[in-house]
This record gives sequence, C-alpha cells and structure tokens, in this order.
Amino acid sequence: MLSARNRLDGEVVDVKTGDVTAEVVLDVGGEEVAAVITRESAENLEIEEGMELTAVVKATDVMLRSD
Amino acid sequence: MLSARNRLDGEVVDVKTGDVTAEVVLDVGGEEVAAVITRESAENLEIEEGMELTAVVKATDVMLRSD
Amino acid sequence: MLSARNRLDGEVVDVKTGDVTAEVVLDVGGEEVAAVITRESAENLEIEEGMELTAVVKATDVMLRSD
Amino acid sequence: MLSARNRLDGEVVDVKTGDVTAEVVLDVGGEEVAAVITRESAENLEIEEGMELTAVVKATDVMLRSD
Amino acid sequence: MLSARNRLDGEVVDVKTGDVTAEVVLDVGGEEVAAVITRESAENLEIEEGMELTAVVKATDVMLRSD
Amino acid sequence: MLSARNRLDGEVVDVKTGDVTAEVVLDVGGEEVAAVITRESAENLEIEEGMELTAVVKATDVMLRSD
Repeated sequence: MLSARNRLDGEVVDVKTGDVTAEVVLDVGGEEVAAVITRESAENLEIEEGMELTAVVKATDVMLRSD
Repeated sequence: MLSARNRLDGEVVDVKTGDVTAEVVLDVGGEEVAAVITRESAENLEIEEGMELTAVVKATDVMLRSD
Repeated sequence: MLSARNRLDGEVVDVKTGDVTAEVVLDVGGEEVAAVITRESAENLEIEEGMELTAVVKATDVMLRSD
Repeated sequence: MLSARNRLDGEVVDVKTGDVTAEVVLDVGGEEVAAVITRESAENLEIEEGMELTAVVKATDVMLRSD
Repeated sequence: MLSARNRLDGEVVDVKTGDVTAEVVLDVGGEEVAAVITRESAENLEIEEGMELTAVVKATDVMLRSD
Repeated sequence: MLSARNRLDGEVVDVKTGDVTAEVVLDVGGEEVAAVITRESAENLEIEEGMELTAVVKATDVMLRSD
C-alpha cells in the first residue's frame, strides 16, 4: 500500500516523449489528467495510447480553488 | 488562466483542521480526492462540507501506476 | 480563490521551450524566479517575453534556508 | 550550490508551530511568502520573528498565472 | 509498477502523529529519511516503529547540491 | 542550513540533458536516485559522471509504501 491517497483510473489518450521527460494525458471519467514523468519511467511502464493507468497524487500536492 | 493543467470539480465531504494544516476531502465523480492545504487557506476559502470546489494539481506532481 | 498562498507578480524575461516542458523566467522586483511548466501550458497562456505574469507556489513547496 | 533556482531573501513576520509541521511567513520586499516545513526543521533553524531567512523553491514547483 | 523512480527501503525509527499530518522517519542504510504524510495514511498503513517501509520519491522532487 | 531534511550523498552515474531539463542519476550506497532538475542548474553545478553530489528532498515530498 502506498501512502499517496489520490488514485484516479483512466485511459491514455495522448503521449508526448521528450529527451528527459514525457507527458501522458489520461481520460479520467471524461476529464483530462496530465502527468509529466521521466522518459525512462514512460518506457519502463511501456505507456501507449489506449492503455489503462492510474494517476497517483500525494495529498500535499493538491490545491483547492473556489469560484 | 493558471498553468496547472489538472482541475477536477467536486463536493467537500470532509474537513479536518489542525494547528497549521487542514485536510479537505472532495467527492469527485464518486472518487475521493484529498488535499492538504494550510489552515489559513482553508479559512480564507471558508471551506465547509457540501461546498463545491475544484482540485488543482500541477502535471509534474502526477505519477502513473500500471497494474 | 486558489488555496496556494504565494503569488509574486513579475515580467517574463526569458522563455525556453522544449518538447514536453518549458522554462519561463520572471523578473520579480529585481529577483529572478524560474518556473518549469508543460509546453502545452506555455502555449495556452501564450507566454512571451515582456508579458506580466504571476508566479504561484504552494506553501508546502517552499523551503527555508538560514545563513 | 543547490540546484533549486529560486531564492528570495526575507524577514520572518510570523511563525505557527503545530505537532508535526510549522508555518513560517516571510516578508519578501513587501510580499508575503508562506512556507510549511517540519516542526523539527523549524527548531533546527531556530526560527523566530525578525530573523533573516531565504525562501528556496524548485522551478518545477512554480506555476504561472496570467490575468 | 509506479512511475516514481526513487525507492529506498528502511526501518521506521520514529513516528510523530498530529491532527492532520504525521512525520515518519526511516533508517535507510544508516541515513535518516523523513516523510510527512497524512495522518489517515499513517493509520491506513498501520505504521509503527520497527516496521519495514519503502520511501518513494518522484524524480522531479529531488534537488542536487554540490559542496 | 536548509529546512529540507533529507540529504543523501552519492556519485553521479548518469546524466541526460534535454532542452529544458536534465536527468541526473546518483549511486547512493548501491541504490539509484534519479533527479530531474533544470538544464541551467545542471550546467551551473557543472554536473558530470563520477562527481560527488548530495540528493536533497523535502519531507513533504516523500511517500511511504508498505509491502
């Protein structure tokens, strides 16, 4: 079990790979969730479009906005 | 406009206030999203249960997990 | 209102765009503040030199150093 | 030398100490900068009001907002 | 598999629990590694002294210092 | 003194430089620790393989995993 509380399941809809980092966009229940991870991690996880992944976020990294 | 890409709308279902920080849990489409912000920010936003808020997360703070 | 407490207004003095990320440097009252955001965000905000922007930082991401 | 690019000198104007964390607010050229660090770090640095400190922030933790 | 690259195994040598957060210190090969997580996560993981845990850190959260 | 609690000494075993960011991998007592910093910081610190560096991580950025 990981202490990071936030886990959102989604499908990969876009992958952009750079020299050092990669941006992966998931469709999470109709909302886009973008992650920037290292290129190496993207390769280790063999990430490609259509794949099911879980976005994981530590609670201290979540901000809140009121309208 | 804010550069942080990830915005998830939800309803406050729990608020825990400490001396320095506060934990706020949102229901985002049936999923729980927990945020730890400063107590002062929780007071500035007048956060209470039932309120509509948006969880905001920078893409560099999102990890990905494959099962 | 956003829970992130720290907001510093400045002028863009440098923009470096990569495949996935972009580095934007602001002059904030004579001090340089550098941000790394996604390339997509830099394009969405149409960031260019001379533009007025606000640097936003969550309090949990600020460290302190004593000399 | 530390890789974190952003360093802003200021004076401590407020300290709130909790069980686990502490909130320290600096006056940086007339702007408030708030940091949440561990209580232990606040004690190690012997932080108190009136003290000169430097706020240090990694560039990947800085967001940008356009009005 | 999780995209966060850094994983360091250690033994819990100290746990401090607050209202909202908890500080857990691991002994990792003779070095101390401190984590601040939510109190709820500390309870979910049933963290106590002597327990074996893995510290997990995203590469974008690691800074480097040269002497 | 810096408030970030976690400091792990190691030797640079790999450096990947991109347009905006750089990935640096340290050998810390036989474990790999990867950092993503700005390209400019990597140049300022003149990072190259074989160099001794210290990985610095804020406690709020450390997650814990139990097996």
